[in-house]
This record gives sequence, structure tokens and C-alpha cells, in this order.
Amino acid sequence: MTGTALKSWTPSPAKRAIVDFVTTTTQPGPGFVAVADRIATFDNDGTLWVEQPLPPQFDFVFRHWAQEIKQDPSLAGEQPYKAVIERDPTLFESLATQDPEVVGMLLKAFARSWAGTTPEQFDAQVREWLQTVKHPKLGALYVELVYKPMLELFDVLKAHEFRVFVVSGGGRDFMRVFAEETWGITKENVIGTAAEYSYRDGKIVRAEHALGGLDIGPGKPEHIFAQTGRLPVFAAGNADVDIEMLSAATFALLINHDDEEREFAYTSSAERSLAKAKELGWTIVSMKNDWSTVFG
Amino acid sequence: MTGTALKSWTPSPAKRAIVDFVTTTTQPGPGFVAVADRIATFDNDGTLWVEQPLPPQFDFVFRHWAQEIKQDPSLAGEQPYKAVIERDPTLFESLATQDPEVVGMLLKAFARSWAGTTPEQFDAQVREWLQTVKHPKLGALYVELVYKPMLELFDVLKAHEFRVFVVSGGGRDFMRVFAEETWGITKENVIGTAAEYSYRDGKIVRAEHALGGLDIGPGKPEHIFAQTGRLPVFAAGNADVDIEMLSAATFALLINHDDEEREFAYTSSAERSLAKAKELGWTIVSMKNDWSTVFG
Repeated sequence: MTGTALKSWTPSPAKRAIVDFVTTTTQPGPGFVAVADRIATFDNDGTLWVEQPLPPQFDFVFRHWAQEIKQDPSLAGEQPYKAVIERDPTLFESLATQDPEVVGMLLKAFARSWAGTTPEQFDAQVREWLQTVKHPKLGALYVELVYKPMLELFDVLKAHEFRVFVVSGGGRDFMRVFAEETWGITKENVIGTAAEYSYRDGKIVRAEHALGGLDIGPGKPEHIFAQTGRLPVFAAGNADVDIEMLSAATFALLINHDDEEREFAYTSSAERSLAKAKELGWTIVSMKNDWSTVFG
Repeated sequence: MTGTALKSWTPSPAKRAIVDFVTTTTQPGPGFVAVADRIATFDNDGTLWVEQPLPPQFDFVFRHWAQEIKQDPSLAGEQPYKAVIERDPTLFESLATQDPEVVGMLLKAFARSWAGTTPEQFDAQVREWLQTVKHPKLGALYVELVYKPMLELFDVLKAHEFRVFVVSGGGRDFMRVFAEETWGITKENVIGTAAEYSYRDGKIVRAEHALGGLDIGPGKPEHIFAQTGRLPVFAAGNADVDIEMLSAATFALLINHDDEEREFAYTSSAERSLAKAKELGWTIVSMKNDWSTVFG
């Protein structure tokens, strides 16, 4: 590994564990991993970019739903529109508990809102949001709020013939809009909750269903296996919904949000994963102590 | 392009069209295609390996169903088992017509037969079949019946920064067992009809449903878009069920099975695609005239 790799990381136990992992898996010896098996998976919200006060995609979706309510005020009485109007986060927070009723209702609402949209139309909506909406506390565009140390980690893994995938509960097609430019990850390496698309009259058009389930909890290893035919060797996450993906990997990295000054300090929705990390010996990253730089 | 590329291709118009396509899309000029967009997709049965007298996976599946009937003779009266017992190809041939009733029934039967299987168990079954069963006419293992000229085409495309995907109506997990060793294509670049898997007790286990529809006809561009976020620039196929994938690409290559001596001569289930090729100017490959070598 060259001296300039991981330069936004302080010389901490976390950095040492990463370097050891990469060395052990790619050099001859008992921990060697065949090139074909070198799959690395990263959660997105809170692992690659800021997820407080709300995962960025929620902001994008809520703006769209607010427009829908303007056009059809009768929607205001039904969920999830009601929660948007009342600025009530409870409904969306309960997504993290994987309550099947909430999950089903929200998946349906997402799918319905964009049914009939072409990828070009959807991309244009996401691009406009990316270029205009700023984070309420940090005052920057969301694509500027990607964690630089994690992009450096992508580079190290790729340099050692790992194929890097992003695996998020968020929308696959939402992330794919900025995946290549912002993360340097090709669209086919972005796995997420997905709408079904149909091919009609020579065009791809969004259908009114989800394809497979929500990509959180056990859904993460399921989506990873479906897309890649393997489970990951390396996985990084930051929340309880990442536990199954992290458990499925040989090496697990858990980002701990403990940096009130440069980002946010919270353990909400990560309590179980922090306990699991201690129990199973996962590598915990302290954003405050282990990263000399947070944003690029 | 080096002189040794495509060496199993005779100096035909088809070879010239391929070389022109690769040159035009990768050198500065009006036809240039950005590296990110360079997706190439290949059908499998009849495009990469022999599909007569039956697509090889049918042989694998029929042997499994014959075992199931032995264990439970009452199955013999119901489809698709009845057709297997009676050696009646009509049912399976009608798959190609994309009859929704037949498709639904067969997808259900496939899913049911392997529900509860782990990837390791399924891989072992496929490997045993690959290593023991020989083609009835050509007397070779199926993995020896891959078309060498197409593997050379993979190499040329990859050398020009195309990402090559295999896209088949056949089973995704079936093809992934030999994809890397036989085609040099990583598992994540294999797209096919897929079973849903669930993650339980730290293990991936096959569920009793299909994930998405059958990967033929319009299902091909749908599966390609789902997996890659793009439609292909280059596509190769050999049958009517490839028409939508070929139409979606900028450059389409259609394999014509006209080589009775070295392989098979037939146009059955390819009549519409041959007509489309002439109508739309797709490049037709004559196996007999354009390939100096068929098998490696």
C-alpha cells in the first residue's frame, strides 16, 4: 500500500485493521482470498454521506410528495402524505424497525409516485435536486457531504482487485444518478431498493411495483447475492439495518457517528449494531478520532 | 486491434462490421461512446454454446425432475412432469412463444424443485452434471461446446473497455457456476431468470418464488436495465426471444445456425429475428462461412 493511501485517516487501530485486512487477503498466506471472491459492500446513508437530520433521499421524496398534494389536496389525509404535511418523522423512523406494514405502504407509495417515468425523466429530477438543495445544517449540496476517508478506502480496495458495491435501503435508481461522478462506482455496482421497470415500445418505463423487497436488514445480503452471486468479504455500515450484511462478511467496519462538531453525534438506530460490533470484534471507526478530514 | 484478435473469424463482412463498430465507438469521432456507457450483452443458448437438440439446462432440469418422479410417482400425472415422462417437447418449445400460462407454470415448477437449497448445494448439482453429461450428438461435455469465436469477441470488447454481460432466459445461478471458468465472465455479469433467495440464520437459501420475470423477449432489456442501469450498446443473440435486446442496442449481431456439419442447421424460433435483422441492418453471422473454428 502506498504512503498516500488513506491519508484522511489518522494512525488509529481502525486504519491498522483495514491495512491488515487488505494485506492478509491479497498476499499469499492463510487469509488469502481469490480475486474472484473479492467483493466489498458499503452501505450509503451514514456510511458514505450524511444521514442526519434525514437521509437525503427522504428530502427528495418529500418535496415530490408535497407537489403531489398541491395537485391533489385529497391526498393530504392519507399516509404517507399526512406524515409529510405534519412533519411527523415517526412513520419514517419506523422504517428502520423493518415493520412490514410500514415498509409495504411506503414501497407502494414510492412506486406509485414515479410509475410511468422514464429513466431520463427520473434522472433529470434527481439532478435538479442534487444541484439546488442544500443540507439544512451544513449548508452544502449533498454530493459535497460524502465522506472523503471512505472514497479513499474505495481506492485502496480497488487497487487490490476488490469489486466495490454500494448497498443501500435507498433507491437504486436514485443513487445511480450520481454513483459514477461522485463515488467513482459504475451504475451496475449500485444495489438498492428497486422499482420494477418494463420495456415497452422500445423504451424502459417504471412500473408500479417494487422488484424484490426493501434492501435493509436480511434484504441486504439477499440483494447482494442476487446481484453478485456471492456474499461480501468486506462490508461497511453504520446502523442496525446493516447488521446482517456486516455479519455475512469476513471483515466488518462500523462507522460510529461521534463527531458533533464536524458532522453529528448520535447512536439512535445503531445501538444493536454497536453492541454486535463489540460482541463479534468488528472494527469500529470513530469519525471524531479516526478521520483527520470528513468531507472532501 | 492486434492481428491475433478474432482469429477464429474468417475475413467476412461480419468480422469487418465488428471491427468497424469497435473502432468507431472507442476512437474520437461522431460514433464515440463514453467508457461508462460501454455495455455489451450476449444471449447464452445458441449464442455462446449449443442449444440443439435442447438447451443444455433443460437436460439438467429434466434429470432432476425424473428423480423427483421416482421419489413421488404421483407427480407423473401433472405438468411439467408429464411432458418429461412422455418426452414431449411441445410444452418446452412453447416457452419461446412467451405464453404467459406456460411461463408461469414452469417458473413455479423450477422454483419449487430447488426451494430450500443453498447455493453450495445447487452449485454441486450443476458441477456434477457439467462434469459427467455429454451432448447426445457431439459427444462432448457441454462446457466444451462453447463457441470459440464468441470468447474471442469477449476479449476484443473487454480490451476496449466494454463490460460484457451474459443475458439468458436460462437460470442465473445455473450459468454462474461455470461463468468465470468457462467464459471468463464474473458472476455479477451474468443476468438470467432468477429465483428469489432469502437470508436466514446466516445463510442464503433459495425461496419458492422467481425474482422478476422470465429473462426473454422484453424481459431481456428489463433485466439488463435492472442489473446495469443502462441499455446495451452492443448485443448478440440468435433467436426470436432476443429481438427486444437486439433492438435496444446500437449494434446488433445475430448468429445464424447454418452449419449442419460442425454444429446444427436450423431457423426454427429464429424466423422473426432473421427477418428483423434484414429489416434493421443487423449484422448476421453465418456459422458455416464466418467461423473458421467453432469449438475451442
